[in-house]
Amino acid sequence: MGYVNTVEALSPSQAFLQAFRRHGAGMCVITLLTSDGSPAGFAATSVASLSASPPLASFNMSQTASSWRSMKMGTNVLLHFLGADSEGLARKMAGEASDRFVGDHWSEGPEGLPLLSGVSAWLQCTVVSLVEVEFAAMVALRVKAGEMGDTQDALVYHQRGYGRAVAL
Amino acid sequence: MGYVNTVEALSPSQAFLQAFRRHGAGMCVITLLTSDGSPAGFAATSVASLSASPPLASFNMSQTASSWRSMKMGTNVLLHFLGADSEGLARKMAGEASDRFVGDHWSEGPEGLPLLSGVSAWLQCTVVSLVEVEFAAMVALRVKAGEMGDTQDALVYHQRGYGRAVAL
Repeated sequence: MGYVNTVEALSPSQAFLQAFRRHGAGMCVITLLTSDGSPAGFAATSVASLSASPPLASFNMSQTASSWRSMKMGTNVLLHFLGADSEGLARKMAGEASDRFVGDHWSEGPEGLPLLSGVSAWLQCTVVSLVEVEFAAMVALRVKAGEMGDTQDALVYHQRGYGRAVAL
Repeated sequence: MGYVNTVEALSPSQAFLQAFRRHGAGMCVITLLTSDGSPAGFAATSVASLSASPPLASFNMSQTASSWRSMKMGTNVLLHFLGADSEGLARKMAGEASDRFVGDHWSEGPEGLPLLSGVSAWLQCTVVSLVEVEFAAMVALRVKAGEMGDTQDALVYHQRGYGRAVAL
């Protein structure tokens, strides 16, 4: 079993990009309210389980993201898990920020937070840790409540496109 | 479109567990050396991209994990991305700690770190941030180098079993 780039070494940045293209990243969407009460949110491929007891999740974001200035200790967010039926929703929430809440794909949920329709699950969370690393940040969430939607295969981002997770 | 648990509310812990069962989590393995130079490592479903420039990745771990005491600022690790051919490798590296390096599925890689065979990619990294949250920790890695293996579908953990990411 050989590695394809043993002759010409990859730069750290090239290796990072190529490796993460091969990663299967579950698609989530995080929503919150800005300081003036407007809905905000973004698609996230970085959501992970951090601890089961207490229930904690994590995600990463760029400090250049439009939602960054609204993300603070104690901020309330909804964390949505997307199923394979929600590619359109994923594309919309990964697209132009000004277009993400134009449409009937969301409603007002708990604490007035934007709740997306048709997701496989959502969790109501509070930011409990927020750590800046270079120009990005790692954010930890404490889970306060949640509900399940219809069971679907998970929507995953893989090889620069959308896919589904199917059992081996 | 209704949510199935609108009558009886889930506890935060139940909601957390059920939501993450529906998540598609890419399978990785992180390896390192203990203070006495022994190989150590574990399967991780929490690996995520943190920043492309500079190239940074993140993962989460429990402070009760056997590798926790070896994980410090400046620790060198290899981050392996598993393909769908590597279910056996994933099970071995998620199993008994004493059994994880028994076999010929690894060799000595850069900086003497345990390098797993047959993975779809691996990155050589250094720990640059380590943040304790309750009984867990979020860890940030700076990517220094890496190589690609054969192209495979990503191995994902989903609904408490192994799966592959296939294009929609």
